[in-house]
Amino acid sequence: MAKSGIGKRRMAALRDGGEGYAQRRNEIIAAGAEVFRERGYEASSLRDVAARLGTDRASLYYYVASKNELFQLVTQQAVEQVVSAAESVAAEPADAVTRLRKLIVTTVQKYDEHYPYMFVYIQEDMNRIHSESLDEVWARTMLQLGRRFENALLTILNQGVADGVFDITHKHIAMNSIIGSINWTHRWFKPSGQLSGEQLGAHLSSMIISGLAK
Amino acid sequence: MAKSGIGKRRMAALRDGGEGYAQRRNEIIAAGAEVFRERGYEASSLRDVAARLGTDRASLYYYVASKNELFQLVTQQAVEQVVSAAESVAAEPADAVTRLRKLIVTTVQKYDEHYPYMFVYIQEDMNRIHSESLDEVWARTMLQLGRRFENALLTILNQGVADGVFDITHKHIAMNSIIGSINWTHRWFKPSGQLSGEQLGAHLSSMIISGLAK
Repeated sequence: MAKSGIGKRRMAALRDGGEGYAQRRNEIIAAGAEVFRERGYEASSLRDVAARLGTDRASLYYYVASKNELFQLVTQQAVEQVVSAAESVAAEPADAVTRLRKLIVTTVQKYDEHYPYMFVYIQEDMNRIHSESLDEVWARTMLQLGRRFENALLTILNQGVADGVFDITHKHIAMNSIIGSINWTHRWFKPSGQLSGEQLGAHLSSMIISGLAK
Repeated sequence: MAKSGIGKRRMAALRDGGEGYAQRRNEIIAAGAEVFRERGYEASSLRDVAARLGTDRASLYYYVASKNELFQLVTQQAVEQVVSAAESVAAEPADAVTRLRKLIVTTVQKYDEHYPYMFVYIQEDMNRIHSESLDEVWARTMLQLGRRFENALLTILNQGVADGVFDITHKHIAMNSIIGSINWTHRWFKPSGQLSGEQLGAHLSSMIISGLAK
């Protein structure tokens, strides 16, 4: 969509628009999340998102460039919540086993809560950064979020090793094995099934913690 | 590429061509694997594959429709080897811990050996079956291979529970957690690094087996 006039205004507003602009943009992201969740990405349109907010589609272009960009922003917001939660857990003054369990359960709960955005994020390999400039900014942000999650997890693993409760030869392998176990849920776990995200997280964390224990 | 004449002849040969046809097709798949491995998918052409076999590109169309189909066949062959190996391990008369360790190590070794085909297979979510007929046949075959791998793994987990060595509340969760831990390696493990596939498999299997142990 070659709307360079509105595109430039949007970029300027993103940079200089202040809190009012950011707040309206967040309202649009929240409405987008609701619409995408209800109808799925394919069936949703920016018109539906505008209707949800009682406005028209044209006014949305001052905030987002396309349905695709809105979907990326929705996903980013979900991932930001997961990462913030993981960092909070890593900063708690509890023992390593308690914190690791909480990190795993919270993460799976958030995946459940933010389904399907988290699963789209996991399926899209963030290491394959796209060439379009907007996608690239987004992909870079997502990569950084991934690193912050890894660091939160590593903080806890390091504490467990220092305290003599975890037996870990290669922290990098342990970290990736844990992340793999959690992230692979995007291939088989469907929310609103027999098992809640919290229950699934509890089962996974039991296996993982036993696997690390001395 | 609308080559309906050659397309029909290929389909007929696939059905009725017998061993000679199948053997030549396998030679082409093997040559394709070498070329893709050396140059990567993007930089490879059917002409390169033909040159490797000392023939011309036109003659390949009697066996494969396109570079994309050849790549699918290469991937399928790699996955078939992984699944056959897993089924052999599951049929061995050893205890569950020994068999589970062997299944995990063998799988990671094969991923390493068949890099990058296994990783392409994992990244492509086989649950999202494409609509083109050829892709659909391929995707269905790959899905069945995935189920066979799951069954081999479940056989071992069931034996471990029956023998009282594994403590597993939800076999489905345990199975998927193990597969997640193995398959997630496609995001971070690069062959010919510091760690061999066998070593990585050994580390993962230690964590996983401790996690299941009573």
